[in-house]
Amino acid sequence: MKIAFLGLGKMGAGMARNLIRAGHELTLYNRSIEKAREITGARVADSPAEACRDAEAAISMLADDHAVEVVVCGDRGIAAGLPEGAAHICSATISTAMARRLTALHENRRQAYLSAPVFGRPQAAEAKKLIVVPAGSRERIEKFEPLFEAIGGATFIAGSEPWQANAVKLCGNFMIASMLEAFSEAFATLRKAGVDPGKFLEIVNALFQSPVYANYGQLIVEEKFEPAGFALKLGLKDVRLVLQTAEEMASPMPLASAIRDRFLEAMAHAQAEMDWSSVAKSAARQAGLT
Amino acid sequence: MKIAFLGLGKMGAGMARNLIRAGHELTLYNRSIEKAREITGARVADSPAEACRDAEAAISMLADDHAVEVVVCGDRGIAAGLPEGAAHICSATISTAMARRLTALHENRRQAYLSAPVFGRPQAAEAKKLIVVPAGSRERIEKFEPLFEAIGGATFIAGSEPWQANAVKLCGNFMIASMLEAFSEAFATLRKAGVDPGKFLEIVNALFQSPVYANYGQLIVEEKFEPAGFALKLGLKDVRLVLQTAEEMASPMPLASAIRDRFLEAMAHAQAEMDWSSVAKSAARQAGLT
Amino acid sequence: MKIAFLGLGKMGAGMARNLIRAGHELTLYNRSIEKAREITGARVADSPAEACRDAEAAISMLADDHAVEVVVCGDRGIAAGLPEGAAHICSATISTAMARRLTALHENRRQAYLSAPVFGRPQAAEAKKLIVVPAGSRERIEKFEPLFEAIGGATFIAGSEPWQANAVKLCGNFMIASMLEAFSEAFATLRKAGVDPGKFLEIVNALFQSPVYANYGQLIVEEKFEPAGFALKLGLKDVRLVLQTAEEMASPMPLASAIRDRFLEAMAHAQAEMDWSSVAKSAARQAGLT
Amino acid sequence: MKIAFLGLGKMGAGMARNLIRAGHELTLYNRSIEKAREITGARVADSPAEACRDAEAAISMLADDHAVEVVVCGDRGIAAGLPEGAAHICSATISTAMARRLTALHENRRQAYLSAPVFGRPQAAEAKKLIVVPAGSRERIEKFEPLFEAIGGATFIAGSEPWQANAVKLCGNFMIASMLEAFSEAFATLRKAGVDPGKFLEIVNALFQSPVYANYGQLIVEEKFEPAGFALKLGLKDVRLVLQTAEEMASPMPLASAIRDRFLEAMAHAQAEMDWSSVAKSAARQAGLT
Repeated sequence: MKIAFLGLGKMGAGMARNLIRAGHELTLYNRSIEKAREITGARVADSPAEACRDAEAAISMLADDHAVEVVVCGDRGIAAGLPEGAAHICSATISTAMARRLTALHENRRQAYLSAPVFGRPQAAEAKKLIVVPAGSRERIEKFEPLFEAIGGATFIAGSEPWQANAVKLCGNFMIASMLEAFSEAFATLRKAGVDPGKFLEIVNALFQSPVYANYGQLIVEEKFEPAGFALKLGLKDVRLVLQTAEEMASPMPLASAIRDRFLEAMAHAQAEMDWSSVAKSAARQAGLT
Repeated sequence: MKIAFLGLGKMGAGMARNLIRAGHELTLYNRSIEKAREITGARVADSPAEACRDAEAAISMLADDHAVEVVVCGDRGIAAGLPEGAAHICSATISTAMARRLTALHENRRQAYLSAPVFGRPQAAEAKKLIVVPAGSRERIEKFEPLFEAIGGATFIAGSEPWQANAVKLCGNFMIASMLEAFSEAFATLRKAGVDPGKFLEIVNALFQSPVYANYGQLIVEEKFEPAGFALKLGLKDVRLVLQTAEEMASPMPLASAIRDRFLEAMAHAQAEMDWSSVAKSAARQAGLT
Repeated sequence: MKIAFLGLGKMGAGMARNLIRAGHELTLYNRSIEKAREITGARVADSPAEACRDAEAAISMLADDHAVEVVVCGDRGIAAGLPEGAAHICSATISTAMARRLTALHENRRQAYLSAPVFGRPQAAEAKKLIVVPAGSRERIEKFEPLFEAIGGATFIAGSEPWQANAVKLCGNFMIASMLEAFSEAFATLRKAGVDPGKFLEIVNALFQSPVYANYGQLIVEEKFEPAGFALKLGLKDVRLVLQTAEEMASPMPLASAIRDRFLEAMAHAQAEMDWSSVAKSAARQAGLT
Repeated sequence: MKIAFLGLGKMGAGMARNLIRAGHELTLYNRSIEKAREITGARVADSPAEACRDAEAAISMLADDHAVEVVVCGDRGIAAGLPEGAAHICSATISTAMARRLTALHENRRQAYLSAPVFGRPQAAEAKKLIVVPAGSRERIEKFEPLFEAIGGATFIAGSEPWQANAVKLCGNFMIASMLEAFSEAFATLRKAGVDPGKFLEIVNALFQSPVYANYGQLIVEEKFEPAGFALKLGLKDVRLVLQTAEEMASPMPLASAIRDRFLEAMAHAQAEMDWSSVAKSAARQAGLT
């Protein structure tokens, strides 16, 4: 399939390579063009619009709502270049409000829009082990299923409205952030109780048997918050977005609110660039540990 | 080993049977004596003190602080009957304050005290798959290791002070309650967003790969809150106890506080006897779902 | 002074009338022109730009960020019409981010910008008893002091940056919302305790001796939430804005977060148009009261 | 009236003196007898029981549940000495659970029990300006009304069950603690916004017109937390008690929960003996202010 791929950060690069390996014909765009050129087996375009010329689908993997707005809506943006009938598939973690805006914008231009956010870290992207969560027209999702299979290990259809996939992605990240908050509070209390954090982690691992708990728990026990796998400031962004969705839905989320305050405390203590598991430092600080 | 076993509820019965199978010589005590008589291969005593006569260790598996107080401190209680040098091993989920009281009480009588709370449901108790978390004198723990091996699948030593094991147990239950709260909020928001809860659970399972998430998530998706595996009112008790420990340690636990308020909302809506995963009903109710 | 006045809702109408009484020469603009025509002693303009022609100052009293954006930035907006050197004084409760945008926008056009939000209800606006909180260039504030004196009973300068006044206004409203939340929780608990709410209010009045407590407490005791003095949905907007400011400042505000969740619960139960003191209904509902 | 008065701390001493001035015949008891001897015009007893011999009423003003238990229930306690038909009036801030225990205990001995907690600081006790909140049998309250009038400026009857007065007292203190939390969060955010805290306080004073806001606000603006008017550790005790009452009533109080966590953070940072308004230091710390 002829595909435009936009956004070649750590996640996007792995996804693009897997699409190429699967035999698709890619044209790449990245703000700093060097990152696009590093990927072999694909053409490189100067603008989003140019990348989308002739494409059946444009897959974007950008940082946030703002980046999406710039790359999609500009004079030489995706919307300007994408042919009628072709689809924009947005894999970024954006707000549900932005997903609705994109849906309307592309519809106005007789283009299709799908949200297809992904769960997984860069290694998972490289290893084709992402969890892909598309939402939108059932027919479109079926048509592009080979693309989702090319980048991920499992695909789950969130619903018929694109923004529903973004709601699911934000709630999934909220589940992880909740685990981090729970770990942080338990570790702080137990450290003050003189219990070895490593011992508690062994017990939690025996209990939950989850690699996600094991990996993040280990980061906290070792206080290994740099380099960040996922920066705390991005975690804050995602909590803000899930709270926005909660407000749209009129659904109170007190735990999400508590996590937001936790992240702000960490931001006020120079942890923006640390891994988001460093919220454990904040809980320790509040308990008077140093 | 000659053992007194006190408290033959669903958990205690399974533990006692596994001790008998492992070749230990048990004398049983239960408030309603019928439950003790149902267990074959052991003697039955009329009072805690009588059960403890000649025992090397008395293992108690009671409901809460109050039950422990009654069974341990009464005229015909464990403390009155246990020989000097023998040990009381308390497996109940009690407060850290009560564990410290028991430590002092038994020390005064030249008896030993260990806390050895367990993680696991009745089936795990029956199947010898409990996670056992003893704390106290290292020497004593080593001596009684065969008992822990007889009832559980894994043993983790929490520390040299008995109450530390109770702190760990309470924090472990807090980790589970946190997961329930996170699930509840996410499900409420996503239901209002029109997303199929079962679909979200599939995604969470792909992400966390934890049987604990899978099992509790399934209960919530099916809204199968009765009969209770673990009653909400007992969950509230455990949250109250972890908050007491947090206060003793001067360690703020905002998520535990939010969970407490959640449980109170559920108590006010007649959910005391439902499974504690029914907190999802509370989150749904707050979001205006019926 | 020649003044353009934009936004003649309940608050704006009272303010405009007091400016006219003080001898100022007003040109009025309102989206629905009838409300402008009801005010005697002033000219009426067809567009914001026209109203601002020849004005030394344009005072706007609009609903929210969006309304301000429309009235200020449009082709025939305030910014298009206001002479160089003249000032836009914005009295609406807007976000600190929007205040910074307005500051830059007017500066680019060699116009001045002041934020001057006010505290008080429509009766206070009519009675010239508003509390006025201007911020911006000291020189400008001094120049326009007669205007602040014409509309209010007291003026407090918040700082030299316009957005600081908005931060103060949002924190002031947060103080009131906090009182409402405290009342709501106390009343719910005491109603379940069988205590007469009116009796508790008498005690609180004896304790705090504040007309704000007395007035809002009375609304809650009488459950008189309609018609709204200040609609709950507007209260939610203000809580959202104070949380945005808190995020800009990296300052955790757990109480503001709890209030946000409270307001969402109320929104989910059809209270958007009720007075914001109706949060007491939400606390009562959570306590199982009907 | 013949009265026993027990507990001559700062509050009790003022109350006792006002009872003497009103012409009542007092016998005093205090753990350290010197404080009793400092008060002129009254007899001094060696034990609570002795103080209560012949008394029509015993008024106690003690520190907490524990002190009440010691002074009431001991071999030579109030209950042992008070004549049948006489009443124990407890003015301490105790738990609703303890009030119910005292009610039952005195009833068993054919004595009467009233709770009559008071609002006000030591100066108010000295100046006969306390707010007195009795609850219990209407007949008894009427009988002892002269005593309430002797110690306070206003009396409000909370209900016919003694513990209801304690619920009211705890909720009243919760209202003050809520104000402190709101102030703390607003001041932290505004300090980071560069706004002068003193200026914000002026505005809050203009808005609320409450001496309670004015006094506590001033303490926070001046960061004058020592010597404590009311120690933070006592504030924590009261929050714990209101949360216990909330649990008895199955009434969620998220703001009270947030305040509890705030107080724990302050306890972990050596603020136990500072005034409870020093929670503002905690909010500032979380915002990264020093």
